[in-house]
Amino acid sequence: MKFDLKITDPKSKARAGEITTDHGTIETPIFMPVGTVGTVKGVHQSELKDEINPDIILGNTYHLYLRPKIDIIEQAGGLHKFMNWDRNILTDSGGYQVYSLSGRRKINEEGVRFKSHIDGSYHFFTPENVMETQRSIGADIIMAFDECTPYPCDFSYARRSMHMTHRWLKRCINHLEKTPLKYDYNQAFFPIVQGSTYKDLRKQSAEFIASVGAEGNAIGGLSVGEPAEELYAMTEIVCEILPEDKPRYLMGVGTPINILENIALGVDMFDCVMPTRNARNGMLFTAHGTINIKNKKWENDFSAIDEMDITFVDTMYSKAYLRHLFAAKELLGKQIATIHNLGFYLWLTREARKHILAGDFTEWKDKMVNQMNKRL
Amino acid sequence: MKFDLKITDPKSKARAGEITTDHGTIETPIFMPVGTVGTVKGVHQSELKDEINPDIILGNTYHLYLRPKIDIIEQAGGLHKFMNWDRNILTDSGGYQVYSLSGRRKINEEGVRFKSHIDGSYHFFTPENVMETQRSIGADIIMAFDECTPYPCDFSYARRSMHMTHRWLKRCINHLEKTPLKYDYNQAFFPIVQGSTYKDLRKQSAEFIASVGAEGNAIGGLSVGEPAEELYAMTEIVCEILPEDKPRYLMGVGTPINILENIALGVDMFDCVMPTRNARNGMLFTAHGTINIKNKKWENDFSAIDEMDITFVDTMYSKAYLRHLFAAKELLGKQIATIHNLGFYLWLTREARKHILAGDFTEWKDKMVNQMNKRL
Repeated sequence: MKFDLKITDPKSKARAGEITTDHGTIETPIFMPVGTVGTVKGVHQSELKDEINPDIILGNTYHLYLRPKIDIIEQAGGLHKFMNWDRNILTDSGGYQVYSLSGRRKINEEGVRFKSHIDGSYHFFTPENVMETQRSIGADIIMAFDECTPYPCDFSYARRSMHMTHRWLKRCINHLEKTPLKYDYNQAFFPIVQGSTYKDLRKQSAEFIASVGAEGNAIGGLSVGEPAEELYAMTEIVCEILPEDKPRYLMGVGTPINILENIALGVDMFDCVMPTRNARNGMLFTAHGTINIKNKKWENDFSAIDEMDITFVDTMYSKAYLRHLFAAKELLGKQIATIHNLGFYLWLTREARKHILAGDFTEWKDKMVNQMNKRL
Repeated sequence: MKFDLKITDPKSKARAGEITTDHGTIETPIFMPVGTVGTVKGVHQSELKDEINPDIILGNTYHLYLRPKIDIIEQAGGLHKFMNWDRNILTDSGGYQVYSLSGRRKINEEGVRFKSHIDGSYHFFTPENVMETQRSIGADIIMAFDECTPYPCDFSYARRSMHMTHRWLKRCINHLEKTPLKYDYNQAFFPIVQGSTYKDLRKQSAEFIASVGAEGNAIGGLSVGEPAEELYAMTEIVCEILPEDKPRYLMGVGTPINILENIALGVDMFDCVMPTRNARNGMLFTAHGTINIKNKKWENDFSAIDEMDITFVDTMYSKAYLRHLFAAKELLGKQIATIHNLGFYLWLTREARKHILAGDFTEWKDKMVNQMNKRL
């Protein structure tokens, strides 16, 4: 993997870059749509490519491990072939998903024992076997196995957990060196900064992570309920420490405003279920604010979903029609809203990049943040 | 509406024709995908047009009346505009749907009182108000309000019901004459032959329906549980009586084999929820038989869904991937299966037309029926 930092905005810390892997180029900043079990819910691979057009998507190790199971993905020749996606894929390590299974998992130094949300069967994830699993899935970027602490989290737990995440990182790296690639392309490995919302811990963790010299670095354990200000404060501290010449990935963030603010702090990569999950609940993101399409006020609003016409759905369907589809619980409603929201998120990060390259990112960002902070 | 009968197959009664309305030409035989509430479930209008490519789709008056409600459709300028579909639409009269609400509806000479399946509210459909409703929806072809009898149905009930359907037909025609068009294009009106599975009644009803001199004629009350042989026997009797120079529409039929056999008996138009509903349950129709994609045997079958490659989904995704989507209850599974099945149904009626025009329909039909009669 190669990272080419094109420019850093003089008024903020926003960066425009280019990651190159064996599956092509990723222009940063980038939002990565979440394709949990090898599908971005409700979106055909052709629509994802031609309409939403991300250079990279995300898959979830925990979900793929349970279904279709790793041997099926191996037999298919990896996740790219299984789902027919020839651009980049990043897989998380399952750490976050396993952490979410509260009451169904037990964490100790060795790893995490958990109960499947599908059939209640027991499984054990360790830094070692998660590296093997990610080799088998075959994403272009794979993640360290970490513990994601909840919010709020007391200091002593956060510190102990961070140290364990650091020890797990060493185990991940050691095991990865011994585990050959499964397919004919490379995989980059990103470690994850933890430390909850404690500045000292974040600083300490970022220094440790930076010292590892990985091809890219991630910031985890955020967007778990903390106020936006705390999120920004943590990102700021961490981005100051993480190396400039490596991409920075802020995991699980966030709203369109969160994304712009974190780009301003030096983050290059994002993922979040918000555009897709909220779409399925009838919430649309636009450049002028959010729309709850289930609201009765749209009942006879026959104007286009979004005049900006970023994806084909935006002018193909009216607000009244989309509202009707949600009222009637029709599949097509979820499909339309998902394509719209992902199209908008990808537009947003592409625009951010353009403005960073053009040198007017901060002005544009401030205008957009102001504009998007509305309910239509 | 104009119907141009191109050719009748010399060895069967299969016909190739062309219906022309203000929304374009419909090449017959045709299968009409069902778009219950103004959406073919899981399919974008662009996919419907470009991939499945039917000249006409169907909407359900009962469902549209309840949601989004007629005033919304009127404000939109009719169903075509509301859903953004500029080709032909046919609406049923609600008779069948109301009949399906067993225990929730009461039929008398005046009409049908029924309880909404959505909110339990009471409504009353009469031949008169259903004509007005269909004017407001604005389909190109609208249907008479009839009673659809169940199977089995005793003779005296079937006879009484048939006579009432005939009286209702007179009321439909009278009221339609007094009800002006709502939009700037014409609507054709089709009456419906009833008579359950009784040859005498079917003959009597077909004669009555034929005497009305409508622009097209429909056969209702079939595909309600009777054996295929009874269905074919009824179609045969009725098609012998219905005028040759008008299109014949067999309502709610059926499997691919049912469709070919009824084309051979002189039917021109079909609709059925089977390709869409069964798709959502994981059943695929192909030229070589049916596939239950949920079956474990497809788990690691990485071959294309259908080598025939009728629609883009057929070679974009593998059987193993589609099986995985169904196992994981992913939206995309339903979307893929629906596009596949509708693509196949439309391919089937287009092929039938080609073979009728080429003069080898019977040979082709016999081969196809034999070939499709398998579970893969």
